[in-house]
Amino acid sequence: MWKEILENVRARAPLVHNITNYVTVNDCANILLATGASPIMADDEQEVQEITSICGGLNINIGTLNSRTIPSMFAAGKQANALGHPVVLDPVGVGASGLRTQTAQALLSKVKFTVIRGNSSEIKTLALGAGTTHGVDADIADTVTKDTLPSAVAFAKEFAQKNGAVVAITGAIDIVADADRAYCIYNGHPMMSKVTGTGCQLSALMTAYVAANPNTPLQAAAAAVCAMGLCGEVAFARMSAADGNASYRTYIIDAICNLTGDALEEGAKYEVR
Amino acid sequence: MWKEILENVRARAPLVHNITNYVTVNDCANILLATGASPIMADDEQEVQEITSICGGLNINIGTLNSRTIPSMFAAGKQANALGHPVVLDPVGVGASGLRTQTAQALLSKVKFTVIRGNSSEIKTLALGAGTTHGVDADIADTVTKDTLPSAVAFAKEFAQKNGAVVAITGAIDIVADADRAYCIYNGHPMMSKVTGTGCQLSALMTAYVAANPNTPLQAAAAAVCAMGLCGEVAFARMSAADGNASYRTYIIDAICNLTGDALEEGAKYEVR
Amino acid sequence: MWKEILENVRARAPLVHNITNYVTVNDCANILLATGASPIMADDEQEVQEITSICGGLNINIGTLNSRTIPSMFAAGKQANALGHPVVLDPVGVGASGLRTQTAQALLSKVKFTVIRGNSSEIKTLALGAGTTHGVDADIADTVTKDTLPSAVAFAKEFAQKNGAVVAITGAIDIVADADRAYCIYNGHPMMSKVTGTGCQLSALMTAYVAANPNTPLQAAAAAVCAMGLCGEVAFARMSAADGNASYRTYIIDAICNLTGDALEEGAKYEVR
Repeated sequence: MWKEILENVRARAPLVHNITNYVTVNDCANILLATGASPIMADDEQEVQEITSICGGLNINIGTLNSRTIPSMFAAGKQANALGHPVVLDPVGVGASGLRTQTAQALLSKVKFTVIRGNSSEIKTLALGAGTTHGVDADIADTVTKDTLPSAVAFAKEFAQKNGAVVAITGAIDIVADADRAYCIYNGHPMMSKVTGTGCQLSALMTAYVAANPNTPLQAAAAAVCAMGLCGEVAFARMSAADGNASYRTYIIDAICNLTGDALEEGAKYEVR
Repeated sequence: MWKEILENVRARAPLVHNITNYVTVNDCANILLATGASPIMADDEQEVQEITSICGGLNINIGTLNSRTIPSMFAAGKQANALGHPVVLDPVGVGASGLRTQTAQALLSKVKFTVIRGNSSEIKTLALGAGTTHGVDADIADTVTKDTLPSAVAFAKEFAQKNGAVVAITGAIDIVADADRAYCIYNGHPMMSKVTGTGCQLSALMTAYVAANPNTPLQAAAAAVCAMGLCGEVAFARMSAADGNASYRTYIIDAICNLTGDALEEGAKYEVR
Repeated sequence: MWKEILENVRARAPLVHNITNYVTVNDCANILLATGASPIMADDEQEVQEITSICGGLNINIGTLNSRTIPSMFAAGKQANALGHPVVLDPVGVGASGLRTQTAQALLSKVKFTVIRGNSSEIKTLALGAGTTHGVDADIADTVTKDTLPSAVAFAKEFAQKNGAVVAITGAIDIVADADRAYCIYNGHPMMSKVTGTGCQLSALMTAYVAANPNTPLQAAAAAVCAMGLCGEVAFARMSAADGNASYRTYIIDAICNLTGDALEEGAKYEVR
């Protein structure tokens, strides 16, 4: 399955519209090229509808959202919805400010997302609202462990059902779920958290995967998570003693570039719950 | 000739003002440093006239143009014109939206450019206007091949004459032309298209070349194209099995850093038509 | 001393709020991760007060300042002051435009900075105002050499006293001074000036060092300068013949990632004046 999903990306080479932060945007562009897709970055309200219309998917990332780009996110999202294009939301840092929380909540209410991808704290904030986050920390721990996996899976499915979207909660164990099924993914390496924007890169990559596999968004999103995690492992194995997080950053994108369908099929470590 | 042009860049170390996109801006800065020039990025309307005044050349790239930076492009361009500084236009994605097409056309009418550099689709859109692009696709194919080279050269010379500028159409075969002569350049590697912003980097590099060789803009622009293509070849030769587009990105800039006048003189593959 | 300062950064893992330029922002984020801190970039006026409130330090860099982000710098700076968080100013290119000079001067008058870090031209412009820079070039040369070191140290101490801040003047010889003492630092490599944003990276790194060592800002700032310079040396030693400034960029951040307290203690080259 994973092999076919990746090969569809390579064969269909989707054009992906990114409205994303300026911190990790270059890596998002290069990882899209690495996987065989093409990136376009455009964030002015006057052009986002046209740009997203010529693309196969839209990736909205609020990492450096601002008064100028927020209206562009809504305009592009609505247009992508009107055209039936897949849309991915990366609610970077939601909960860290009212602006992020309100923008992400408003996006969720006005735009239909195909996939919502974030870490467990971000998804929790989306699900529970900024004001109540502390109250449920004990129930749904921020870090998904073997012990908390069953409750996290249930939470993910519920959130997916409520939003009619696939939800991807990434961390030491990743959960990619729709209302009925959850892929629990064990790929990845802790060093990935030392590179800025591996989450952003994954959201961009996932948009390409979902755009190239329109009938299987759950599996496509899970495949992107497996691919990113597996390439984190491959990249780590390549590191020498003098290498640090900067070389690791390069090696991860290199690994995505060289990833074959067979390697993904063999390397994906997951279970379905 | 190529050797002298590069050595002028190294000796004169021009300061280059870039109003460019946030996707590839870091690579533009580093490639300018690699070639011996210095970058300044400044895009606020309140300061671009002053910044461009202290520079030797201006590079305008519309890759992530927006309502705030578009007026800055005009203000900087006019000031550079008033001072006789060379100005390069990179019309990234022109044709993909009305905003891009209108902005690029307005820039062409209000600012005198020394060089206009884009891929064949971008230059076609500039030449023919957004509405008529489809009508001439058969005449001027988007990809320049050996068969279409004569018509592409004629098109480039005509466009150069009309705009009083050097035009650089880059692709598998690059054409750098003024009204009378065209350099057809055969350097480069297909892998360069897997790195985001190699075109943006070339435009930045070209601005430095033209700024350091003010009396020979055609040759300076052609030299920059040869240099970039040659370094794409050198960088590709350096790749190991685990390397992908991210390492290749690094190797290209490294190669520009280490490029000597003699290597450029020997490595440039071109003909004049 | 240096060892303890670095180990505090690793142990306390400060969250650093950066309002910085879009040219070198990715490197700033990755160098913060490399040293064991965490980056947040946020520049919208509606959220910077909240964002800086949850952080341990604030880094303000005017490299691509604009009409939208300038008010954010003031709002964040005031909030950080109100909370007693350390604030670092990197006045990139001050003197190159009225906007930069006026913004930097206004920031100095409205925000209390813990450290002001720039090259000698930038600090001179801050100290003397844009209009009078030429008048004192003979006294305080732009490049600090062994001959001009005594006068540069005196200048740095005076500027530090006037602003109630640590001042870090970086160049071939670095000076980090408060009103009473100056660390003169001899680490570093000339190749560092061929990588865009090594100064920006240092300012980000320094914010983490100062945030993790709140009682010794002078020593913390000096430690960051030693660390950056030492890693510039380590990275240079790693370069092969084909490497250029792009690989060097990667190696510097890698070296920060692998830097130990013992290596910093042994490698720091400095004197106190």
